Amino acid sequence: MAPLADAAAAAVAGAAGAQGVADARPGSQQYPASGASASQHPDPADPVFAMHVGGKLEVVAKSPLRTRRDLSLAYTPGVAEVSRAIAADPTLLDVYTGRGNTVAVVSDGTAVLGLGDIGPGAAMPVMEGKAMLFKHFANIDAVPICLDTTDPDEIVETVARLAPTFGGINLEDISAPRCFEIERRLQERLDLPVFHDDQHGTAVVVLAALRNAALVVGKPLAGLRVVISGAGAAGVAIAAILARAGVRDVVVTDSRGVIGAHRTDLTPHKVQLAAQTNPRGVSGGIAEALAGADVYVGVSGGTVPEEAVAGMNTDSIVFALANPDPEVHPDVAVRYAAVVGTGRSDFPNQINNVLAFPGIFRGALDVRATRVSEGMKLAAAVAIADTVEVPSAGEVVPSVFDERVVDNVAAAVAEAARSEGIARR
Amino acid sequence: MAPLADAAAAAVAGAAGAQGVADARPGSQQYPASGASASQHPDPADPVFAMHVGGKLEVVAKSPLRTRRDLSLAYTPGVAEVSRAIAADPTLLDVYTGRGNTVAVVSDGTAVLGLGDIGPGAAMPVMEGKAMLFKHFANIDAVPICLDTTDPDEIVETVARLAPTFGGINLEDISAPRCFEIERRLQERLDLPVFHDDQHGTAVVVLAALRNAALVVGKPLAGLRVVISGAGAAGVAIAAILARAGVRDVVVTDSRGVIGAHRTDLTPHKVQLAAQTNPRGVSGGIAEALAGADVYVGVSGGTVPEEAVAGMNTDSIVFALANPDPEVHPDVAVRYAAVVGTGRSDFPNQINNVLAFPGIFRGALDVRATRVSEGMKLAAAVAIADTVEVPSAGEVVPSVFDERVVDNVAAAVAEAARSEGIARR
Repeated sequence: MAPLADAAAAAVAGAAGAQGVADARPGSQQYPASGASASQHPDPADPVFAMHVGGKLEVVAKSPLRTRRDLSLAYTPGVAEVSRAIAADPTLLDVYTGRGNTVAVVSDGTAVLGLGDIGPGAAMPVMEGKAMLFKHFANIDAVPICLDTTDPDEIVETVARLAPTFGGINLEDISAPRCFEIERRLQERLDLPVFHDDQHGTAVVVLAALRNAALVVGKPLAGLRVVISGAGAAGVAIAAILARAGVRDVVVTDSRGVIGAHRTDLTPHKVQLAAQTNPRGVSGGIAEALAGADVYVGVSGGTVPEEAVAGMNTDSIVFALANPDPEVHPDVAVRYAAVVGTGRSDFPNQINNVLAFPGIFRGALDVRATRVSEGMKLAAAVAIADTVEVPSAGEVVPSVFDERVVDNVAAAVAEAARSEGIARR
Repeated sequence: MAPLADAAAAAVAGAAGAQGVADARPGSQQYPASGASASQHPDPADPVFAMHVGGKLEVVAKSPLRTRRDLSLAYTPGVAEVSRAIAADPTLLDVYTGRGNTVAVVSDGTAVLGLGDIGPGAAMPVMEGKAMLFKHFANIDAVPICLDTTDPDEIVETVARLAPTFGGINLEDISAPRCFEIERRLQERLDLPVFHDDQHGTAVVVLAALRNAALVVGKPLAGLRVVISGAGAAGVAIAAILARAGVRDVVVTDSRGVIGAHRTDLTPHKVQLAAQTNPRGVSGGIAEALAGADVYVGVSGGTVPEEAVAGMNTDSIVFALANPDPEVHPDVAVRYAAVVGTGRSDFPNQINNVLAFPGIFRGALDVRATRVSEGMKLAAAVAIADTVEVPSAGEVVPSVFDERVVDNVAAAVAEAARSEGIARR
């Protein structure tokens, strides 16, 4: 889920190092590695490790198996009636099994939190945590599926073959640009929601926050000049959703500067980005991009010099989402910007995709949508934004613990799916 | 799980037909079919369908997510510590995630109960039921994985790629002879237990029952003449485990008669069976096979003429496991046999693989065994048999509700794995 709150992950490495205890735990420079000795094992008394012993999830029966009658209803011979009914009418699969409320949380471990390509096993605790969020926020049963392959063809084939089992596919922590192709091909293959949260969860919440922030500063959304630093999964998806929301002037930067037609070093997905953004033909670095800009969205993990922030337009908006170290520290950003958001829970305006994905999947599953359309994502963003009754500089998004969010998002997403004709009930 | 208790499934079709209500539900002649109209849908007031609405399983968190601190331990930033630790030492995957206690219940829907190739969606309720059994009997978290492919290569590749997610693979309701190759290749690929329950669960319980039945009739196990009708998954596995248990005279029959070197119509797995069984070179049909035999094991779903049973040796043993209609009705079998068992719960000696697989997986997972060896299967059979304190004609296996079974089997399996050096703790 890098680079939102989830990238806060990186905090741990940094913090441990700063406190001089890196030698007691695997340091970031040590993995991928093998054969760590027992003395390097984590301290079981550490509350994080203590709560992880045996994992965080459990698969339980909804009803007891106490008697032969219980067995005969839930298993043989009774279950055969249900199998026969589904064989005769496949639409009953989502009625008489848990499939319609079950989502696979799929990762190949190539872009886990801020930790990079640490492998599918190391991704498992994150996917278990994600499954906890699905259950807690949306009452969706989610199953971690960590794959022992990083080949896009193999990932697509493998996940497509799981379709009889799952009502939705949440892709997670798969590195760019592979993630774009994998999501697209899977959605083409499957008539169920396929959703790469690192892209679209992030993009939906950024758009929600930006809608309210634009209200607060009194600027129309469509007229904003927006700069996005970071051209990975999140940056690409944010640029796309802002364009669909009517924002006409988006400039994206990567580590080598502004992305545009002038660049000769672009990978295919950045060539596409160059064609779809930067209408004024800006070149240079982040300072040139930010000169006169209304909005900065950081999903890069880098840093932005204070002078560059100072060059932004009046009443500017800064969403610095790298975790744990925002690209612009909020204490600095507030000197220049009217609205400041981060991925952190200890500052106002925490832009966290847990505001989006539970409600999006809840709504999509509720109506058995065949996909998560662009319209459903826009509807989700509006619903998140509208959950804040009186937007202010200190509150452009709801709290992650605001229980109204998931219901509002689910209802809006379901309605959008129905109006687009991609709902099956 | 055909053809044991699970094949009781077939009972439903028959019973519904006999009661003249087949027209209210999809009849067996109707599937695989599509486009059943709403009027053909099952009655939601039927207790079987009522208990299946929404499915039978739930994925729940082991700890609550109430506060920001809960989130920070179970998810970001805390979870990153766990991911880093696993990346540095992969053995921690089974310590700090649920993988070590989680089994995939994998089917392609080609041999579901007694219903045949009804597809992966229609297999889902059965796999959910199986997962309930895993949880109830062995506290194992099991996840249904129904695959949208019947190609052995694709099944092997798909399941192998799930290895970072699951600590064991229970193959289920995959048709013979594909099941033999799929299990073998997966076990070669993976260093975790791969176990086709229709084969080995059945075989283990049959051996357990036969050990006690041999005691009851006072005949040494090794000297028994055994006839198995049925050369599918269960028949092949029973022949194999009996050979390993020292039984030297096993004859297997299929629908065309005794399998042996004289047959010219054998598929490859039956050629192998011919080479490994039938030491006296018997030919003919079931009557010729049973003449003078000590044991009949039916896993065929056919019927055996009473005259053939009458030709068995004195103090014979009949395990007629087809469900719901045993190959020899127990009321008939008792006229000739000293010990009679079936797959049914309404007669003595229910030979049900729920006696085997929960304890086998429990024991294998407890010691992180790299496979389920032949020794572990034999140990499981002995443990099941020995759970019956005083075997008698009416009790050669324990009740499926005898709570000592899973502990006894798990302990024996774990010990066998340790003694063979395939336990990792």
